[in-house]
Amino acid sequence: MTDQSTPAISFRLRHTMLPVGDLERSVDFYCRLLGMRVVRRRSGSSAGGGHPTAYVGYGEEASSTVLELVSGTGRQDQPWAGHLAFAVSDMRGLCGQLEQEGIRFVRPLRVDQNGTGRLSAIILDPDGFEVELTSS
Amino acid sequence: MTDQSTPAISFRLRHTMLPVGDLERSVDFYCRLLGMRVVRRRSGSSAGGGHPTAYVGYGEEASSTVLELVSGTGRQDQPWAGHLAFAVSDMRGLCGQLEQEGIRFVRPLRVDQNGTGRLSAIILDPDGFEVELTSS
Repeated sequence: MTDQSTPAISFRLRHTMLPVGDLERSVDFYCRLLGMRVVRRRSGSSAGGGHPTAYVGYGEEASSTVLELVSGTGRQDQPWAGHLAFAVSDMRGLCGQLEQEGIRFVRPLRVDQNGTGRLSAIILDPDGFEVELTSS
Repeated sequence: MTDQSTPAISFRLRHTMLPVGDLERSVDFYCRLLGMRVVRRRSGSSAGGGHPTAYVGYGEEASSTVLELVSGTGRQDQPWAGHLAFAVSDMRGLCGQLEQEGIRFVRPLRVDQNGTGRLSAIILDPDGFEVELTSS
C-alpha cells in the first residue's frame, strides 16, 4: 500500500526562487556571509529568460537544492510569510560575524527552549526575506 | 584566494517554509501529486512551535532540502513572487495526471524555446504558490 499515485515518476527539488532587488548584493549575502557559492549565472539577454539570475548553493545543481536569485523582476518588495532555513556548524561564530556586518536580526541568537540545547536565530536577507539559522 | 570569509563554518540548506491554509490539503498535493513523502510531523501542542507542521521531501531531512508546511499562521494569503522548482522524469505523464486532478496551470506544458527541448509548466499549489515543473 502506498499513498503515492505517481510511482513511475521521479522528482527532485531544484531550487527556491527569490526575486531580489540587487543581484550582486544578494550574491554577496548568500555567498560571502552564508557560505554558498555561485553555481551558475544567466544574463538578462540569454534566451532562457529576461532577468539577470544567479544560482547559489552548497553543492552542484544536479544533486542538491539551490537558490535562484532573480533580479529586475520588480517584485522583490512583496511580502512573503515563509522563510529559508540553514543548518550551521558554528552558530556563535557566524552570528558574531553577521552582527559585525550589520545584518538585521529578527530573533537574536538564543538556545531553543525545546530541550535540544540547539542554538537558533532569524536574520533578514537584503530583500527582507527571513532566514532561519540553527545549529547543525 | 577565496571570496568566503567563513571557511571554518559548514552549512546546509534545511528547508523552505510555506505557510499553508489546510495542512492535509497541502500534504496531499506535495505527496500524492508531486511524489514527496512526509518525513516528520510536529503537532501544534509541542514545545517546538504552536502550529501543526509537516516536513515533506524526496529524501531524509538530514541530507536533503525539504519543504516545511506550516498551518494556522494566518499568513498564507500574502503574495510571494518567488516559486519552488521541481525536476520531473515524466513531464507529459505528470501533467496529464495534474490536469485530471483539476490543478491550475499558470503556464501550460510546453517545449522550452531555449533549444534544450526541455518540457516545462507552472502550476499553483493549494495556497497559490507557484510550482515550476521541468524535465529532469
